[in-house]
Amino acid sequence: MAEAMLVGVKELGFDQAKLIECDKVMAQDFIDADAIIIGTPVKMGGIDHKLKAMIDTVMASLWIEDEIVGKVAGCFATGGGFGKAGAGVEVTMISLANVLLEMGLVYVPLPKNTVGFDKGGLQWGAYALSANENMCPKEISVDSLNVAKTHAQNIVRVASCVSQYRPFMNNRIA
Amino acid sequence: MAEAMLVGVKELGFDQAKLIECDKVMAQDFIDADAIIIGTPVKMGGIDHKLKAMIDTVMASLWIEDEIVGKVAGCFATGGGFGKAGAGVEVTMISLANVLLEMGLVYVPLPKNTVGFDKGGLQWGAYALSANENMCPKEISVDSLNVAKTHAQNIVRVASCVSQYRPFMNNRIA
Amino acid sequence: MAEAMLVGVKELGFDQAKLIECDKVMAQDFIDADAIIIGTPVKMGGIDHKLKAMIDTVMASLWIEDEIVGKVAGCFATGGGFGKAGAGVEVTMISLANVLLEMGLVYVPLPKNTVGFDKGGLQWGAYALSANENMCPKEISVDSLNVAKTHAQNIVRVASCVSQYRPFMNNRIA
Amino acid sequence: MAEAMLVGVKELGFDQAKLIECDKVMAQDFIDADAIIIGTPVKMGGIDHKLKAMIDTVMASLWIEDEIVGKVAGCFATGGGFGKAGAGVEVTMISLANVLLEMGLVYVPLPKNTVGFDKGGLQWGAYALSANENMCPKEISVDSLNVAKTHAQNIVRVASCVSQYRPFMNNRIA
Repeated sequence: MAEAMLVGVKELGFDQAKLIECDKVMAQDFIDADAIIIGTPVKMGGIDHKLKAMIDTVMASLWIEDEIVGKVAGCFATGGGFGKAGAGVEVTMISLANVLLEMGLVYVPLPKNTVGFDKGGLQWGAYALSANENMCPKEISVDSLNVAKTHAQNIVRVASCVSQYRPFMNNRIA
Repeated sequence: MAEAMLVGVKELGFDQAKLIECDKVMAQDFIDADAIIIGTPVKMGGIDHKLKAMIDTVMASLWIEDEIVGKVAGCFATGGGFGKAGAGVEVTMISLANVLLEMGLVYVPLPKNTVGFDKGGLQWGAYALSANENMCPKEISVDSLNVAKTHAQNIVRVASCVSQYRPFMNNRIA
Repeated sequence: MAEAMLVGVKELGFDQAKLIECDKVMAQDFIDADAIIIGTPVKMGGIDHKLKAMIDTVMASLWIEDEIVGKVAGCFATGGGFGKAGAGVEVTMISLANVLLEMGLVYVPLPKNTVGFDKGGLQWGAYALSANENMCPKEISVDSLNVAKTHAQNIVRVASCVSQYRPFMNNRIA
Repeated sequence: MAEAMLVGVKELGFDQAKLIECDKVMAQDFIDADAIIIGTPVKMGGIDHKLKAMIDTVMASLWIEDEIVGKVAGCFATGGGFGKAGAGVEVTMISLANVLLEMGLVYVPLPKNTVGFDKGGLQWGAYALSANENMCPKEISVDSLNVAKTHAQNIVRVASCVSQYRPFMNNRIA
């Protein structure tokens, strides 16, 4: 998913885009970015604890200092198994959104008129089934990858206009 | 709350801003707007049924046709009473956000460095206590009204840049 | 769904079980019951406004007076369409659970080892797809109906033991 | 909070009750218990990553095997700081509830007629402010501790009746 997103963003000419694993990302990576996309496998109906560890440390320090307020963000998730729905995918994405909004980030949805939405989208972001109903792992479908790519492009487009305006700057506590 | 928001938006020079009650708003009002802000009292831990009736009819018809995808939105709520936190305010705001994201709207958070955030803000938007812990109604505080005003201004500022770009247009299903 | 649940409960010998539509249910119906099951179609990612109107009036009056604290409850939903997952089904069920917990009701989950869970269950309760990915309505599957029936039986079994103990009674504010 | 809960449970005569930290708890501890209470500080609007690590490993293995289906559970959280509400406490508790329901556990709410509810309760469980609006840490109030104690007693009372019935046993997949 993340690789499809990277391809999409680079296609738009944003060559400085980077894919960074959650145990390697640093505060400066967030500060340098105009757009931030985070994703997780659905683990026990929520954010994977390895990503949560990064949120509770790296992102928490940025949050305390309001260092990335006004940037643009979106999210994605992979899930699967029992309950067809990829049970827990909504709670997981709401939890991701909750973190992104806490950081003061403008949040980009995945509109249902996106090509392939019915194969890999929720209003909260891109998602893909990585396992069948019986929990057998399966490859992520091409449709889902295409949706992820489009979602990343949407996020970057919003970021490229919002980043010029810094819309919340006037309201900051001095 | 809504009136404070209207004042804030007009101060920025957006004279065409309108405050419309949920039983009077029409689909065309949404289509004409660049920014959409919806609010509700917390009722039984969720969206008031009168607002939900509007969502299930007016907004549902816009949703089916993808007519307001790519506009900018935010939300607010008032609550109070048992449980200090204005119990249910988060579920209510998540429900509002869920609707706004379903419509394909870019969602503007309320950053915690907003002046007065500690008196009337959640990451999901502006909120105000309209009752004490013991459920006695009380006036909404000036701090909460100021936060609401700033939140509306943030939303409109984001909208004024995003509306020029229509960032999702290339991705629409023809 | 509701009819399958009623059949299931009557099979267990609870002949006084009733199926009541949301615009006809009265406060006394809740007071008379040991177990309460509510369900809704997913409407714009949330509770249908007609059910919400009942919650905001009939259930709100019971809530204020703490009249049904300690009874047992569960929920179900039907959804479908865009996004395979029946997008919004989790937010909808969380909203229903939120209401039931506010009423002080013991909440019965749908365990994943329920026969047919993968066809019509979420941890929050029974759900069924009432439309395809492309929003064409479809009949609710037999599997989903069976899951709903089992879920209702579980709720009633929990209620039949909890109702004898009234476990919260000692803690009530006099 | 957890210590107040332990005192409450022991007062009811349940001497085998144990308080176990999340990095020390083992699968067998869950299997041996009739009632399970989990709690977390609100960290970045969600479950602390150290607790999530336990959920993703110890509880996940129990989940896969459906080993604790039909037991009884509840939760608590501590939070504080910006936004008065202990922003994120609802999302955190919904996330905890989501995990408990996934495990197939009967969920005990905190009824609003609990003495002290207005000082330390949400419908989802007991919570306490561990910091002021300006994020200065503060001691948890006696009221909040009393609510936690009562909540634990409610959970144990429900468990002591449900555990005799094993209400979901007939429905298990053989």
